[in-house]
Amino acid sequence: MRTVKDIMIKNFNVVTLGDSIACAYQKMKASNIDTTIVLDKKAQCVGLITIWDLLKAKALSYPFDTTPVEEIMSFPVVTITEDSSIEESISLMMNNRIKNVVVVDSDQRVVGLISAKAIVECEECIVNNKISCTIGRPYKIAIIGGTGKQGRGLALRWGKGGHHILIGSRSLENAKKIAEQLRGNLNSIGVEPKIEAGLNSEVVKDAEIIVLTIPYQSIEELILSIKDGLHEGQIIISPVVPLKMSDGGEMGIERHRISAAEKVYLMTKPLGPETVAAFHTIPAANLSRIEFPLNFDVVVAGNDAKSKKVVMKLISQIPNLRPLDGGSLKNAETLEYLTSLAINIGRKYKKPTIGLKFI
Amino acid sequence: MRTVKDIMIKNFNVVTLGDSIACAYQKMKASNIDTTIVLDKKAQCVGLITIWDLLKAKALSYPFDTTPVEEIMSFPVVTITEDSSIEESISLMMNNRIKNVVVVDSDQRVVGLISAKAIVECEECIVNNKISCTIGRPYKIAIIGGTGKQGRGLALRWGKGGHHILIGSRSLENAKKIAEQLRGNLNSIGVEPKIEAGLNSEVVKDAEIIVLTIPYQSIEELILSIKDGLHEGQIIISPVVPLKMSDGGEMGIERHRISAAEKVYLMTKPLGPETVAAFHTIPAANLSRIEFPLNFDVVVAGNDAKSKKVVMKLISQIPNLRPLDGGSLKNAETLEYLTSLAINIGRKYKKPTIGLKFI
Repeated sequence: MRTVKDIMIKNFNVVTLGDSIACAYQKMKASNIDTTIVLDKKAQCVGLITIWDLLKAKALSYPFDTTPVEEIMSFPVVTITEDSSIEESISLMMNNRIKNVVVVDSDQRVVGLISAKAIVECEECIVNNKISCTIGRPYKIAIIGGTGKQGRGLALRWGKGGHHILIGSRSLENAKKIAEQLRGNLNSIGVEPKIEAGLNSEVVKDAEIIVLTIPYQSIEELILSIKDGLHEGQIIISPVVPLKMSDGGEMGIERHRISAAEKVYLMTKPLGPETVAAFHTIPAANLSRIEFPLNFDVVVAGNDAKSKKVVMKLISQIPNLRPLDGGSLKNAETLEYLTSLAINIGRKYKKPTIGLKFI
Repeated sequence: MRTVKDIMIKNFNVVTLGDSIACAYQKMKASNIDTTIVLDKKAQCVGLITIWDLLKAKALSYPFDTTPVEEIMSFPVVTITEDSSIEESISLMMNNRIKNVVVVDSDQRVVGLISAKAIVECEECIVNNKISCTIGRPYKIAIIGGTGKQGRGLALRWGKGGHHILIGSRSLENAKKIAEQLRGNLNSIGVEPKIEAGLNSEVVKDAEIIVLTIPYQSIEELILSIKDGLHEGQIIISPVVPLKMSDGGEMGIERHRISAAEKVYLMTKPLGPETVAAFHTIPAANLSRIEFPLNFDVVVAGNDAKSKKVVMKLISQIPNLRPLDGGSLKNAETLEYLTSLAINIGRKYKKPTIGLKFI
């Protein structure tokens, strides 16, 4: 496996404290490397000059010829050892929001410079996706309304992860067609998933997890049609949002006394299942395209801690999704509102696949 | 004097929505320009791909061949007109912490790209004035309840940027004490801010911007106390959230017929001012410590487009904050709900300074 040593720049630019900005700039221009390392008299790295620092100098009208580099250098410098992995160097860059990391040996002497550009350009540098293939035991997951984008997306992601997926629909024919398609999609990338199909009322019977990827308006009818298959020990996931277009063309929420998830909860709790609200703000368009990674947070709300934990585990099994505990089911309302806000922002900025992260 | 037109890159890289990351990368590699402009089908600029975005894609194991550019592009894009001064372009870069600004003509068509590198390399580009953090003219900003953390934070950030700050309080003594403290804080980092103090009812009179950093319960009393100073042309910023602790110890929202911001709007609109909701989810603890950078999104909601634009500009003047247009004032309700959700998540994960970003 490639390490930092393999792709670091070895003929990096160096200046020492007291050198002028002009000196650093000349070296950067001549070498076509956008960074210069600043050393102190003991050859220890104390700063970096980047194009950004030069811009700052210009903005402050610092004369390049007479201003010493220490006036504008960035510090402290982030360093890495030469035998570190490429993943580690990426982590350092992403976490510190920097594009260059100084490479040092065991005596803290500078031996190179690793840049974001070098990593991007290195075709052999494969970053291993942290897909945990060990998902623990597989769950039996019924996806109600599983023929839509959101349902298909979850089926693909969890089917790929080894779970047993049951695609539910009001039309058996439709469900079978979609199940076949999804199996085909996963077969084409070398996965043999367990994806079956059935009527909504049938697939819920054996399911441990029931995902309602249905419109808000169908909640009552749907629950009446599956109620005979509901029982204790099951978890219902509600990503349902009562979206409503306003007169002004803005997306909004149909305001009710309670949220969609709380409605599901009140209607089904007497029969046994727990309800957990999740997946509201994950763009369905991304979800349904297995080649698209998903780099979002999924906030989960629910009253039963155990069920919430199971759902959070299922979320964390989809690469790059981060489950966050959003408290009790009462907070599902916020998640539903948030969906309409995200849709509006996505439209405004022409980014339909918008999602969010807490930082 | 040189303008943006003289040093912009005219043969910039372009991709359109739906193009792959690989396509953008190829163009960047071939041209030796580190940035690609993303256009929509109407040739409007909707994003930028930088080396940083490519690194992110690599870190997330996004396949370059099949992932469309919109998945990783940076947005919204900062633009400048071609006859603007070099100083202006530097200001935009420094304030937004970006290295590239897209140059547009009067029809908002992309005509070029101006980079930090080009500015640094342009020897004829003499910067006459030291670039301050303020873009355009300073505003007169009254901060009502300005003695709290949120108020002090905004005063520091905008005071540093050159705006004229009026700290308002019910107690003149308190307001004066805090104003002196804030001046001291900024003096210690070499800034001479314009921060004054007064009674709430006094400071609003001359203010162009009035920020209500007050508890929900004080809205009515406060507005009654300042109403004689309100008039047309003023903008009221409402970050107010009707927070309420639930019996279970979870943070929640006191549910009313309308949001706090809408309440402010209804009470003040007859007197002239516009109301804009903003700053709900920016952690006050971070805001009030000037040495802490803020890397968050600020969603702004309001009915008057012009006022919203002014507030978004004021937000973008605080380094690393990104304003996002969240639509009409009706959406303030979502922002208020979101605050309680963020507080709960922050507590759960022991990160009181939690905020969020749309991606």
